[in-house]
Amino acid sequence: MTEDQLLDLLRRCQHDFLSGGEMSHKLGISRTTIWKHIEHLRKLGYEIEAQPHHGYRLVSIPDRLIPEEIRFGLNTRWMGQKIVSYEETGSTNDVATKLAAQGMPEGTVIFAESQSKGRGRLGRSWISPKGKSILTSVIFRPKLLPSQASQITLMSAVAVAKAIEKQTGLSPQIKWPNDVLIEGKKVSGILTEMQAETDQIRFLVVGIGINVTVPEESLPENAASIHYKGAGGTVTRISLAQELLRQLEAGYDLIHEGEWENIHQQWQERSILTGKHVNVRCMERQIEGTVTGLDPDGSLLIRLDHGLTERVVAGDVVAVR
Amino acid sequence: MTEDQLLDLLRRCQHDFLSGGEMSHKLGISRTTIWKHIEHLRKLGYEIEAQPHHGYRLVSIPDRLIPEEIRFGLNTRWMGQKIVSYEETGSTNDVATKLAAQGMPEGTVIFAESQSKGRGRLGRSWISPKGKSILTSVIFRPKLLPSQASQITLMSAVAVAKAIEKQTGLSPQIKWPNDVLIEGKKVSGILTEMQAETDQIRFLVVGIGINVTVPEESLPENAASIHYKGAGGTVTRISLAQELLRQLEAGYDLIHEGEWENIHQQWQERSILTGKHVNVRCMERQIEGTVTGLDPDGSLLIRLDHGLTERVVAGDVVAVR
Repeated sequence: MTEDQLLDLLRRCQHDFLSGGEMSHKLGISRTTIWKHIEHLRKLGYEIEAQPHHGYRLVSIPDRLIPEEIRFGLNTRWMGQKIVSYEETGSTNDVATKLAAQGMPEGTVIFAESQSKGRGRLGRSWISPKGKSILTSVIFRPKLLPSQASQITLMSAVAVAKAIEKQTGLSPQIKWPNDVLIEGKKVSGILTEMQAETDQIRFLVVGIGINVTVPEESLPENAASIHYKGAGGTVTRISLAQELLRQLEAGYDLIHEGEWENIHQQWQERSILTGKHVNVRCMERQIEGTVTGLDPDGSLLIRLDHGLTERVVAGDVVAVR
Repeated sequence: MTEDQLLDLLRRCQHDFLSGGEMSHKLGISRTTIWKHIEHLRKLGYEIEAQPHHGYRLVSIPDRLIPEEIRFGLNTRWMGQKIVSYEETGSTNDVATKLAAQGMPEGTVIFAESQSKGRGRLGRSWISPKGKSILTSVIFRPKLLPSQASQITLMSAVAVAKAIEKQTGLSPQIKWPNDVLIEGKKVSGILTEMQAETDQIRFLVVGIGINVTVPEESLPENAASIHYKGAGGTVTRISLAQELLRQLEAGYDLIHEGEWENIHQQWQERSILTGKHVNVRCMERQIEGTVTGLDPDGSLLIRLDHGLTERVVAGDVVAVR
């Protein structure tokens, strides 16, 4: 934490120099220790100028999702109390699952600049070039039944949409169950994985990928980056990641306060499929009809052509018209 | 598999000697190889007499849940194609979970003579002295939603009850959700654990413990062993374990053929709580009323005193009268 305080001092001086003596005095550590911290921060990517007789000056901060930057100004109560970040890892969900199994608390957050084995829903892969996305996984330990896990997934989609709204002014929409789209193109995907007994969730890991500055040519046709959708230059990965963590905390607190209906409402307001005629592949069935909304249990409500309404609990949806 | 064939030859000769030459001829392997297999079988606990000029004779088989014995006369189609057994392990569910995560197929079965970290439902411990129980875990990969996982748990309780019925003639009952009782005392517990996405079970491990010859003094007051409940000497752990695997296969096949209603019925016929006045602690609520049956989704139906019926999806039930 001394390093966070040191960084804080440098940040507050903006572009002025701060003498080693003053820092040593304020933090109650030796000049040698300060030098060691400065060296470590430089390794993390902080550009820090050092001049004899003047001291140190923070020139630039790294564009990396590291704990030092995420924590600064995060302002959450419990989310992100523990942050682990990787330059590269297999999959942030795998790391989070391992840590959760070892007992790491709710609100532990994993970030990675790139993943070698990124996964999407239903065993699909999730590819993202280094340093151009937010790749994060959060550990939750909700007092919910396995059948209620979709509340956390749907809440997470709302949190992603609201974080993008707040940071960019754009209006993302949600495609059931949990894709977040801008102008019809997918900018974020969510993969929820859990370990549970029949009547108790042990823990749940929500993995979120957001394309921030991924070039269009590296993305599938139906995907996009928020940077190229009107938010160019106005949003950093760090500030968006922080807003996401704040939204996840707020949404999760709502669910635990019995306010699921509130999240349900927020989800519905952003639903891109409502009113659309769709085709759904659900387990081994094929359903066609018009989406009327979201059932409180998380399933999609579809009015079939002959008038009956079906609840779709899982599947892939294709809008027909 | 040569070892299984060799054992088979010895078994078929009952208590007669079988010459090394004849075995060598029938199995197409050298006498030295036969000797090596005999040595290995002895290490597993088989008592095999060897006499010059006479050959080998099977004197006794070990009372251990080892693949060699479980496979012999098992007669299943897919259950137990792969069997792994331990003298001692932490928990058979942990082993099964690890193997399932590595991709081991449905129907893989783990046995242990004892567990150092046996677990029951909701984080409780499960203690059993060495060699006196059936401790087993089975890997399933059902095409079900996480919310339907209880079908597999309830089916497993029916399988345990039917296996005990067939092997002992006793009439076990089921206490919701999945305890199996004889004369009101618990003889078996089931712990289902799963790894899942929100809309897809990845795999499910059913752990089953059955007290066979555990002495009463090693058991909690409300528990018993089937051996001391009228099945003394009439049932071996091996034959009971085999019957259990056959019943699990049959029950699982029924569910996959869309015959859940059949299992549901079999469960209800054995329900000890139906008609009883009970007190249930469910999440943070307390419910009191009369049990009217099992909802097809696996929840317990309780008619409250003022007439309304509540569905209890998880919890502990205490019969009041």
